[in-house]
Amino acid sequence: MFFHIKELQYHAKPEKPDALFAKKLQEILGGQFGEISVALQYLFQGWNVRGNGKYKDLLMDTGAEELAHIEMLATMIARLLDGAPVGDLEKAAKDPVIGAILGGMNPQHAIVSGLGAMPADSVGNRWTADYIIASGNLLADFRANLNAESQGRLQAVRLYETTTDRGVKDMLSWLIARDTMHQNQWIAAIKELEAKENVVVPSTFPRRLEKREVSHVLFNFSRGNESAAGRWAHGTSLDGEGVFQYVEQPQPLAKKPILQPAPSYIHDTPPSVIKNHGAEAPPPHLY
Amino acid sequence: MFFHIKELQYHAKPEKPDALFAKKLQEILGGQFGEISVALQYLFQGWNVRGNGKYKDLLMDTGAEELAHIEMLATMIARLLDGAPVGDLEKAAKDPVIGAILGGMNPQHAIVSGLGAMPADSVGNRWTADYIIASGNLLADFRANLNAESQGRLQAVRLYETTTDRGVKDMLSWLIARDTMHQNQWIAAIKELEAKENVVVPSTFPRRLEKREVSHVLFNFSRGNESAAGRWAHGTSLDGEGVFQYVEQPQPLAKKPILQPAPSYIHDTPPSVIKNHGAEAPPPHLY
Amino acid sequence: MFFHIKELQYHAKPEKPDALFAKKLQEILGGQFGEISVALQYLFQGWNVRGNGKYKDLLMDTGAEELAHIEMLATMIARLLDGAPVGDLEKAAKDPVIGAILGGMNPQHAIVSGLGAMPADSVGNRWTADYIIASGNLLADFRANLNAESQGRLQAVRLYETTTDRGVKDMLSWLIARDTMHQNQWIAAIKELEAKENVVVPSTFPRRLEKREVSHVLFNFSRGNESAAGRWAHGTSLDGEGVFQYVEQPQPLAKKPILQPAPSYIHDTPPSVIKNHGAEAPPPHLY
Amino acid sequence: MFFHIKELQYHAKPEKPDALFAKKLQEILGGQFGEISVALQYLFQGWNVRGNGKYKDLLMDTGAEELAHIEMLATMIARLLDGAPVGDLEKAAKDPVIGAILGGMNPQHAIVSGLGAMPADSVGNRWTADYIIASGNLLADFRANLNAESQGRLQAVRLYETTTDRGVKDMLSWLIARDTMHQNQWIAAIKELEAKENVVVPSTFPRRLEKREVSHVLFNFSRGNESAAGRWAHGTSLDGEGVFQYVEQPQPLAKKPILQPAPSYIHDTPPSVIKNHGAEAPPPHLY
Amino acid sequence: MFFHIKELQYHAKPEKPDALFAKKLQEILGGQFGEISVALQYLFQGWNVRGNGKYKDLLMDTGAEELAHIEMLATMIARLLDGAPVGDLEKAAKDPVIGAILGGMNPQHAIVSGLGAMPADSVGNRWTADYIIASGNLLADFRANLNAESQGRLQAVRLYETTTDRGVKDMLSWLIARDTMHQNQWIAAIKELEAKENVVVPSTFPRRLEKREVSHVLFNFSRGNESAAGRWAHGTSLDGEGVFQYVEQPQPLAKKPILQPAPSYIHDTPPSVIKNHGAEAPPPHLY
Amino acid sequence: MFFHIKELQYHAKPEKPDALFAKKLQEILGGQFGEISVALQYLFQGWNVRGNGKYKDLLMDTGAEELAHIEMLATMIARLLDGAPVGDLEKAAKDPVIGAILGGMNPQHAIVSGLGAMPADSVGNRWTADYIIASGNLLADFRANLNAESQGRLQAVRLYETTTDRGVKDMLSWLIARDTMHQNQWIAAIKELEAKENVVVPSTFPRRLEKREVSHVLFNFSRGNESAAGRWAHGTSLDGEGVFQYVEQPQPLAKKPILQPAPSYIHDTPPSVIKNHGAEAPPPHLY
Repeated sequence: MFFHIKELQYHAKPEKPDALFAKKLQEILGGQFGEISVALQYLFQGWNVRGNGKYKDLLMDTGAEELAHIEMLATMIARLLDGAPVGDLEKAAKDPVIGAILGGMNPQHAIVSGLGAMPADSVGNRWTADYIIASGNLLADFRANLNAESQGRLQAVRLYETTTDRGVKDMLSWLIARDTMHQNQWIAAIKELEAKENVVVPSTFPRRLEKREVSHVLFNFSRGNESAAGRWAHGTSLDGEGVFQYVEQPQPLAKKPILQPAPSYIHDTPPSVIKNHGAEAPPPHLY
Repeated sequence: MFFHIKELQYHAKPEKPDALFAKKLQEILGGQFGEISVALQYLFQGWNVRGNGKYKDLLMDTGAEELAHIEMLATMIARLLDGAPVGDLEKAAKDPVIGAILGGMNPQHAIVSGLGAMPADSVGNRWTADYIIASGNLLADFRANLNAESQGRLQAVRLYETTTDRGVKDMLSWLIARDTMHQNQWIAAIKELEAKENVVVPSTFPRRLEKREVSHVLFNFSRGNESAAGRWAHGTSLDGEGVFQYVEQPQPLAKKPILQPAPSYIHDTPPSVIKNHGAEAPPPHLY
Repeated sequence: MFFHIKELQYHAKPEKPDALFAKKLQEILGGQFGEISVALQYLFQGWNVRGNGKYKDLLMDTGAEELAHIEMLATMIARLLDGAPVGDLEKAAKDPVIGAILGGMNPQHAIVSGLGAMPADSVGNRWTADYIIASGNLLADFRANLNAESQGRLQAVRLYETTTDRGVKDMLSWLIARDTMHQNQWIAAIKELEAKENVVVPSTFPRRLEKREVSHVLFNFSRGNESAAGRWAHGTSLDGEGVFQYVEQPQPLAKKPILQPAPSYIHDTPPSVIKNHGAEAPPPHLY
Repeated sequence: MFFHIKELQYHAKPEKPDALFAKKLQEILGGQFGEISVALQYLFQGWNVRGNGKYKDLLMDTGAEELAHIEMLATMIARLLDGAPVGDLEKAAKDPVIGAILGGMNPQHAIVSGLGAMPADSVGNRWTADYIIASGNLLADFRANLNAESQGRLQAVRLYETTTDRGVKDMLSWLIARDTMHQNQWIAAIKELEAKENVVVPSTFPRRLEKREVSHVLFNFSRGNESAAGRWAHGTSLDGEGVFQYVEQPQPLAKKPILQPAPSYIHDTPPSVIKNHGAEAPPPHLY
Repeated sequence: MFFHIKELQYHAKPEKPDALFAKKLQEILGGQFGEISVALQYLFQGWNVRGNGKYKDLLMDTGAEELAHIEMLATMIARLLDGAPVGDLEKAAKDPVIGAILGGMNPQHAIVSGLGAMPADSVGNRWTADYIIASGNLLADFRANLNAESQGRLQAVRLYETTTDRGVKDMLSWLIARDTMHQNQWIAAIKELEAKENVVVPSTFPRRLEKREVSHVLFNFSRGNESAAGRWAHGTSLDGEGVFQYVEQPQPLAKKPILQPAPSYIHDTPPSVIKNHGAEAPPPHLY
Repeated sequence: MFFHIKELQYHAKPEKPDALFAKKLQEILGGQFGEISVALQYLFQGWNVRGNGKYKDLLMDTGAEELAHIEMLATMIARLLDGAPVGDLEKAAKDPVIGAILGGMNPQHAIVSGLGAMPADSVGNRWTADYIIASGNLLADFRANLNAESQGRLQAVRLYETTTDRGVKDMLSWLIARDTMHQNQWIAAIKELEAKENVVVPSTFPRRLEKREVSHVLFNFSRGNESAAGRWAHGTSLDGEGVFQYVEQPQPLAKKPILQPAPSYIHDTPPSVIKNHGAEAPPPHLY
């Protein structure tokens, strides 16, 4: 169950409006690694944890905080849109700043949301749950979280570089600091799980069931061998289960596949038209 | 530039057809963490590397290999669909296996692709580039890659558990082993970059510009304090830049936001209807 | 800012697992009118209210409650998936219930989410922010909300009819009651705004600027005139601004449009190939 | 069955081209509440009405008219794009109006559609059937329709405010008037159905089956009690079935959920790693 | 402008309900090549024709007919869903036909559309305007249309093969015949345009501006030379502008690209970390 | 299996950066008919060919080449983005070119991809597999391919017209030439298959099973009879199976459909509210 309090976690007030920056700022609200993504990703992971304890609590703590960040960004965007110019380009464009804004602002900020934030990214793609990840395996998911916080902090930093508004920079410097913490915390949690399990996810699948002869091999599929110089091409593997090998010229291990003709009720190109040179034997049992 | 050879990297032949498993297997071909995702993710990361050397080569090596995995899965799925039953449920359902297949197989495998693999997941969602990540920052992106291989291996293992077909299991055990390698290699690359830079992405943003007072703080936003027991709540932070703190009862740092009325040309609810109790001063400059 | 408490708003425990119902129940979690939709719709509307007071508070109250409903449904779905059967169809289908489950359950519940709820609907479409609405005009938006609660309660009722599990029915009867309240509350708020403004949104656009001669006319574009029998075809209009009229045989008011040829740099079909019979005069000013 | 006549329902001719406004105007052609949405929404509702009579006819009348509005907008957009400038920014930008157009127009209008309208919104998102609603329950659906016409008229009014072109304004004033009628007609139909049934959708679900104790309760989940001042918090409920109540401090009614561990074949984090403090009793029957 | 008449173009009545076939039939209503796609594709092409005459008329004729086909399919699907079974699997599955239906029908047909047709395909993906094509170049677009009718007829034929219901087969045999006509008509129109222009689209781009030395060359990028046996590898090219050539071993014509480092404000991996072996000279002018 | 070589198939180097053109160029990389679409379309068609021989080889040859084109475009876009300006509009806009770029460039090129190419189109829509086609019927699919190359060449030509950069023009002239070849080759393959089968896809469905009386009829559904003048309205049909006919005033062949009421558990509007005038007899068998 959730409670909302109306005060913001941190300030979200620009020095002055900037409709073009409002459009860009949407990226970290409703983009692939925006606050909606991390909020719902952590909450879904938390709800799906089978068991209980500190990991579940950590997910719920952080998920609830990200809801507060959505709120801060929505507030900031609305304020950046205060009094956004609309109207005739020909008149307006006498002032090149206004011209650039009229050409460059997100038109949906005026037409659709009435100068409010939208659940969308900086080019107007609506947020989609395709962005989020919750597998039930915590080590896998904490890696997803570390990635999300890495991409998210990178984007916030890039936005910080593109404005001189002190109010915006102040809020971004808060969000960047929180991303620092969140990268730290997921690294801590990952290290703990890796120590208890193994670095390879999932740790519970018996290694003898995989084709161990290729579990630590780098195949060189891009001509030239610069990649042979990396740690991943020699020495003990990171999972402690083998030794890295480098295969300069990978060879195929199976022959050219030739598929059986489709049944006539499928109305593919008739087999008489596609010649089937050297078809392999049919599979043993067709239903 | 790319060359194709017609032989497969590894065998992709089931013991016998199974249209229901064909549908499930689509997940690791065209799902969020399927082979299309990793192939295009690594290739785009590789093409966008500004500079050159072993990291770019490693990305191109692995991206090209994943194209071969798409090919193996497409071949396997077409064979699992050999002679898939269609037709009248009422007759067919006398055999409960056929009935379950008619109800459960992906109808597009018959109607749309003519018993071929589709660029879609196990419920029929078409693959989308929303799944992939390429930021230009290699540490961020290698974390994305480690996550992708973790989720991907987890899904392959779950599929392995749901079939007894020895041909399918053989192919999956190959793919699982390759995911083992790929997790190993991205971990190796991550460790190398973390050692050269720092664990926090991006490493080049001056720490003094972020709100350092909250860079290592865990806020307890979910009632109860199980999360205080974690490594992330005490001791030196993982980035070596501070000490973790735990805040039991987080407080808001900004007051309740009150937004200015919209200009009349936006035709929001008129301000006289929404009473604006205690509005804050307007921003200094409206265009 | 948001706080989470770990207790649920209401019980979410089935009598026993049912993986097929888990799939169906996803509709009201992650479908077009599921709880994610209403939660984010109300929160975005609330954050974007320009002004303050009871409407904003009502939106935040209800938005926060819907977060609790996502949580209840996620919990219920995980429990419905407890120990979901996977494995070989041929063996399993000896029990027709297991067969129907293997054919009918959402395969991503096993492969992707590890027996957890997903941010998706009952056929597996991921949730998208295309579902939600926040325009800045409260009367418009409250109508969106009333629709959402109407569709949502209808779907919950349909789901109630398809199960005999007393635990599921108990939870649904709670959610249905809350939808009753939410329909009531949006109707109350709508009536209040309609009384203050007018029933036509937006109320602030001067009526003299619209083509008033067609503001209260029903055009009969589907042959036969059953629709003439409705209240909308005679009597004073609901906005009190006119009298409804019925036009049996609507006539076009503008002539057949003929577009100018495209510039040659567009490489459309050349004008010599498409004959332009009776082209109208070109527009007065081409940039 | 449908017939098309080539004359337009109303004029669709700008005074002069304006590629930037063409981009914005796409919103009410192919956006969430554009004419494609209402046309297909009304037609699908009409086709799915089980029964016959005036409601079905009204839906078909209005759906067919909206097809004519798509046509008007498509024609207007093509004319606004007449001779749209393309070419080198550096040369063009000497004229700031051209510069703003080159930066701001939708590039797909030149590259993809050859200066024609697109089935997309003002930021280029393609139209999707996620936007439309047809449930089989007419009261629910007429509320969806009232919302669509409210949002649609609001957007048309906002567009009207951003242009001085008399041809565009003329067409918009027609469309705005038709939206006035359509809001009126859906309100009339809603009132009729509410009088026959009840205001709560669906009216056929027995009230005794819902948890009546919370059917008329407002839970205060956002700190502060401004929302207590509304009509929804006191007095007889709008459905005439109860009395509104306001709960200042809502309490959870169910305890903290603890989920059973996943079966081993799911390969979640092992239960030994996630400690399961105080797990509840397992459900009675696992398949 | 459009008129609707309530009679159907052709019969749409099954012998008896079949909820599973209703789901499959959605493919040709709301799938990639369903009737919504062709209706809107032809209408948008027609509206965007710059000029007038028989091609535009043909597009409008056919577009309007496809609206009638949507209507027939929507009617058929609603009838196939008449009285669709819902309810408890455990009881129902005693009848294996009911069991297969409960597992296999589209749950949204019951929960969302109330036993009505949906604007979606056979796996539940909602229709999207990503499916349609209108470029302004008629030869290009008529090829798109020929493809759409080819895929569409193929899918209708595959559906015809999977049912024994005489009512369904009767309607499909009508739709298949119309697809026969539509393939014929687009072929006729294509031949006419190819005769007037050239077979290569667009015909108006001066051939001297393309790299003519590769305009008729087949590069053998898949090892083995079966493709050398085709008409495309020898003889006069189909456009009459050259002679086909076959290149057995294609060579790259440009050297390995090495990208300049990103500016520091982008915060990519620092150049010192990615070594830039042999970087090429920087581009001449950076803004 | 695939090999990558690091050299490019052809040069991809602009004279100088141009962030606005980089945005536009995305269309033929990641748009509906961009290189990702053709690469994956040809590869999926190739993998799904049931049989073997020259058609499959041709598909794999061309699919592999298109991967090289993705690579060229990705490289070109990264170079066009070299040193792209970011920063404060107010300062920057003193130079109108910079102003137009700041307003007009794709903000994700800076924020998300770090000045790299994205798998997206020119307005930022991410690539989706909804764009591609692989049916198993080669004649159908080669028509899809001919369309893709026609649309693709058209778009490349339009882009060619909008730049004066000689490096960009050089690369485009290569891609345009390759599209010339690909149109030629698919036409050659289509002619061959049409000669072996028939022009109507699929050729294997017995003509007597379709309603032959409407297989060659043009129905005039758009008032006015310009379309009667076309080849499609008279003479022998292109499939040689009939004679084209033109029906000036098409009549419906089925009566007005009236659907049965929904079962009560669906909770549609009750039949007593929707009057069912003259309902037809119920279908013979409701499950």
